[in-house]
Amino acid sequence: MTDFPPPDFSERVTRSFARQAAMRLIGAELTRVEHGTVEIELPFDEKLTQQHGFLHAGVISAALDTACSYAAYTVIDAEASILTIEFKVNLMSPGRGERFLFRGEVTKPGSTIIVADGRAYAVSDGPAKLIASMTGTMMVARGRQEIAG
Amino acid sequence: MTDFPPPDFSERVTRSFARQAAMRLIGAELTRVEHGTVEIELPFDEKLTQQHGFLHAGVISAALDTACSYAAYTVIDAEASILTIEFKVNLMSPGRGERFLFRGEVTKPGSTIIVADGRAYAVSDGPAKLIASMTGTMMVARGRQEIAG
Amino acid sequence: MTDFPPPDFSERVTRSFARQAAMRLIGAELTRVEHGTVEIELPFDEKLTQQHGFLHAGVISAALDTACSYAAYTVIDAEASILTIEFKVNLMSPGRGERFLFRGEVTKPGSTIIVADGRAYAVSDGPAKLIASMTGTMMVARGRQEIAG
Amino acid sequence: MTDFPPPDFSERVTRSFARQAAMRLIGAELTRVEHGTVEIELPFDEKLTQQHGFLHAGVISAALDTACSYAAYTVIDAEASILTIEFKVNLMSPGRGERFLFRGEVTKPGSTIIVADGRAYAVSDGPAKLIASMTGTMMVARGRQEIAG
Repeated sequence: MTDFPPPDFSERVTRSFARQAAMRLIGAELTRVEHGTVEIELPFDEKLTQQHGFLHAGVISAALDTACSYAAYTVIDAEASILTIEFKVNLMSPGRGERFLFRGEVTKPGSTIIVADGRAYAVSDGPAKLIASMTGTMMVARGRQEIAG
Repeated sequence: MTDFPPPDFSERVTRSFARQAAMRLIGAELTRVEHGTVEIELPFDEKLTQQHGFLHAGVISAALDTACSYAAYTVIDAEASILTIEFKVNLMSPGRGERFLFRGEVTKPGSTIIVADGRAYAVSDGPAKLIASMTGTMMVARGRQEIAG
Repeated sequence: MTDFPPPDFSERVTRSFARQAAMRLIGAELTRVEHGTVEIELPFDEKLTQQHGFLHAGVISAALDTACSYAAYTVIDAEASILTIEFKVNLMSPGRGERFLFRGEVTKPGSTIIVADGRAYAVSDGPAKLIASMTGTMMVARGRQEIAG
Repeated sequence: MTDFPPPDFSERVTRSFARQAAMRLIGAELTRVEHGTVEIELPFDEKLTQQHGFLHAGVISAALDTACSYAAYTVIDAEASILTIEFKVNLMSPGRGERFLFRGEVTKPGSTIIVADGRAYAVSDGPAKLIASMTGTMMVARGRQEIAG
């Protein structure tokens, strides 16, 4: 990770997140942006469910990938952008809860490749329950106008 | 794979898919159900995009996971259900196109664990373009009322 | 994770590890067995290298998979066994060092499926360097004579 | 994939494979090198087994990663080299057989990132049996002396 956080990383992440129509569609909010860590929260909504009434694995993946990607944004310089190359998700418990918290953290920063890990939690009364984990591989993209920001 | 397709597999998949609110939310349609193979199609919609205006990786994952899961449904008996344990997605090209096709195929059937592979294509004028692949591990669940169907 | 460690888990892991010919071949030693955590260590050896002279990714995977599998063994009852269904490895830095440490930890215990995470470190003078991570999905197998232990 | 195979790709792969001490250690042979596809074969050997007497998952991973990496070599220019960033392996059947065949194929070529898929088969009397699959993400490295070739 860069020893010093790049300037304005929080504003850049916030602006970029606001442009993600898919995050608006599912009702996700950006709730924490720190150097190396980003959190997203999501209230349960029936429109986000799979056939058994639980949060769809694709919604879990969307929020985890977004949290991991923006965690990567917090450790790159202001001219660069992030592309997800690939990720793996383990679904550990049904997506059942009142709210969900998705945390992405940079495990290995780098000038070209960044590895981030994410965890998804269901939050109701009582302790948060781990429902899924992600490991994602991100590429630092530079000088590609179409994906700026 | 079972040598003979289980009876009514197509109806069961169609009914179960119709209960997936998240698939309605993104505008996905079930367009092909065969023994071992399921296809889902999706028109491009701005509400499904990430910050650069391409189809969000989470939407791609949602559709691929659904295609792979239902491919697994086509090779299990009528009393059983499918749970996705984990999947990995490789994002190969930006999700840019007029329509998207997601194909899930059973690679390894089994009485407990089924492995399925998926491919996502962007379709516009000209040949379809491979934009993502998935390998998913599914568990055959039996006797769990909450996840029947 | 089971609230109480299953009796004799350490002896069972040690006995089973001793039967792994592939671990002898690469010179790996079992150095820590605790409830939910297993560590394996390996000295660098030129016979374990890839074409650039670094530890081969397959050797890293072999040791990480073994550490994760035995971490899973420490949370199951004595009659059961563990089968690795799948794993993902991220290779973060070249496998360069005098010794290597592989730690496997149970992230999500379960009666059928266990998820474990592993980390590989290169150890020389100075602080250990993270070179790879693994997430593995294990199945708890019961009553299968051929894979007892 | 490059429209025309880069010159001498077969010789480069053969030379590089010969430098992989870990492949010698496990007794692997390079048996096929074509534009986009590489195959490796391995006779069963007790020294390669895990605790149940089957081929160790790490050995399967080592051979699959090597086949996938060299498949990627066949589509890059002579000055570049390949680094595996990450891979995922699904273990579908026990590694039981007289010989094993590992095939790596380029799914998505690229100037920076190449995605390759691999399949492992156990070969005895009768038809070959699929025992494992891999998806690997490779990076094309240029101008790094330490990893030339």
